[in-house]
Amino acid sequence: MIIDCHGHFTTTPPQVAKFRAHQIAEFARTGKATTDAPPAVSDEEIRSGIDGNQLRIMRERGIDLTIFSPRAVGMDHHQGNEQTNIVWARYCNELVHRACQMFPDSFVGVCQLPQAAGVKPGKAIFEELDRCINEYGFIGANLNPDPTGGKWSDPPLWDKDWWYPLYEKMVALDIPAMIHVSGSCNPHFDAVATHYINGDTTAFVQFMTSDIFKDFPTLKFIIPHGGGAVPYHWGRYRGRALDMGLGRIEDKVMNNVFFDTCVYHQPGIDLLLKVVPTKNILFASETVGAVQGIDPLTGNYFDDTKRYIDASSSADQQQKSQIFSTNALGVYPRLKAHPTCKACL
Amino acid sequence: MIIDCHGHFTTTPPQVAKFRAHQIAEFARTGKATTDAPPAVSDEEIRSGIDGNQLRIMRERGIDLTIFSPRAVGMDHHQGNEQTNIVWARYCNELVHRACQMFPDSFVGVCQLPQAAGVKPGKAIFEELDRCINEYGFIGANLNPDPTGGKWSDPPLWDKDWWYPLYEKMVALDIPAMIHVSGSCNPHFDAVATHYINGDTTAFVQFMTSDIFKDFPTLKFIIPHGGGAVPYHWGRYRGRALDMGLGRIEDKVMNNVFFDTCVYHQPGIDLLLKVVPTKNILFASETVGAVQGIDPLTGNYFDDTKRYIDASSSADQQQKSQIFSTNALGVYPRLKAHPTCKACL
Repeated sequence: MIIDCHGHFTTTPPQVAKFRAHQIAEFARTGKATTDAPPAVSDEEIRSGIDGNQLRIMRERGIDLTIFSPRAVGMDHHQGNEQTNIVWARYCNELVHRACQMFPDSFVGVCQLPQAAGVKPGKAIFEELDRCINEYGFIGANLNPDPTGGKWSDPPLWDKDWWYPLYEKMVALDIPAMIHVSGSCNPHFDAVATHYINGDTTAFVQFMTSDIFKDFPTLKFIIPHGGGAVPYHWGRYRGRALDMGLGRIEDKVMNNVFFDTCVYHQPGIDLLLKVVPTKNILFASETVGAVQGIDPLTGNYFDDTKRYIDASSSADQQQKSQIFSTNALGVYPRLKAHPTCKACL
Repeated sequence: MIIDCHGHFTTTPPQVAKFRAHQIAEFARTGKATTDAPPAVSDEEIRSGIDGNQLRIMRERGIDLTIFSPRAVGMDHHQGNEQTNIVWARYCNELVHRACQMFPDSFVGVCQLPQAAGVKPGKAIFEELDRCINEYGFIGANLNPDPTGGKWSDPPLWDKDWWYPLYEKMVALDIPAMIHVSGSCNPHFDAVATHYINGDTTAFVQFMTSDIFKDFPTLKFIIPHGGGAVPYHWGRYRGRALDMGLGRIEDKVMNNVFFDTCVYHQPGIDLLLKVVPTKNILFASETVGAVQGIDPLTGNYFDDTKRYIDASSSADQQQKSQIFSTNALGVYPRLKAHPTCKACL
């Protein structure tokens, strides 16, 4: 079985993004959240968005199940306020839920959180988590480590007052979170090319230099995009941790942190599979997502990451099987209850 | 011949850092630059700082020449104001100059710029460049793409009004710059583990998405630390550039941008040498610097990057020779006049 742990509903119909633009424009104009309700989306619109895109690609590449969440760059936590972002998160999560219900064998949901710049995670986030996990059957959440959109001006992940209540909630619900920044309002950072990768690297070092996993030994995070810069600089991070008296990163971080395989060329995947312990790698492609074209050097899609893993000599079949499915079942405890997974257990 | 393009004078005597602390404390206290002069440093202090450290390691590892600049994390552009930073840059550059004079066969200078948060590069920087290049015989500069120290709140590198006058000056002096952030005052970013690597990746994408090299076809930048996350995500960057209609990054960026080899493990160096064109790679170790310990897995120093290159099968002897010296002579035109290089040409 092959589980892609990182897919987004990037193919919603145009009224969805248009509603968000309306929310933001109204907030900019009035300083308040609009009371306008989000527009309807028909079953047919959801079906055709998924069927000709994510699902077609999954069939072509032999992927059985995608862990599916709202469009990451659309989470947009740095815009609007908490009230707009609650409405927006509920709307986006409901669309993912409907897609999962429509294609229950192929998708399982992960939710967007109603984070907002300057707002400490609290009631709104916990309620949306309860709704998505308990009512929708979602199995995790995307956590934005920088809801200020490239300003990085809210507290870091190790801030106990700011973040620990959310970690307690994650532990209580028995869910992991994928660390995933959203758009950038800082002209220094292109969202997809810069901010995503920097966000991944930043989160890793915050985990490495803090006591989060001493305080929450069962808490789990997935760092996407192959762990940002970390595997390429594995020596720097191993060495820096030793120099700083933090011990081995394998002990300090790697019982709780997992990297996905969204690395879009063969040598990158080879390195990832070679240096990072197999138990810490989860298959993913982020399709349809960041890079949509064909690599002129290979004739294959850049984001066809399964192909790189199949071709890699950095792992054997047993290890690849862990990466393709077994590891995900360990990281997302609620995944075991999913029909597609149950059939394989 | 082996040229290390990335070394810092990290081993100055204690009064040097103490003076900077005094500058900052006085600025914090009074809001003005102190008029106190920097303390004297004896020849013996310079000699013993270098001889037992950088020079000893160069000898042990067979490195002939180091392109030497002031301590990067000490540049500290986000602290003080332009006036404090002029005094500080002049002082640090003079110490590097004296080290280069003392060991002329082994070191050649690159200068720290008197950048300051919120201050557009202008007269102070140009004067210091003239002094260091024309009087001291330095061959390049370190350019901090974020003098706000992790706030990233000054303009990006493609901002014509802010940065182009400096690029004109670089072209006029026929020097390249190494992109190098300094310390971080943002609690999200550990300077060495996060900010350095993010700064490298950020600069690359700013180059990729802008017309800087259309406007300055001969301008050259070295991105240190193996190019940040870029080589590991080479497929993402190649693919993203194509998706964005920017063409091939090899054409758009790689006639002007060079990566050093400060990657502290074998698989990282193997990947760098495999995916990045050989002409774009310059040997470096950043010794004595970011990671100073021994890798328990190999028994060798993490930062002994020559060892990884020697052992790599990703490049042949001819390519390694380019990486070890020939490329540096092309990127730093003024290097050809250095006695150690002249003897080899």
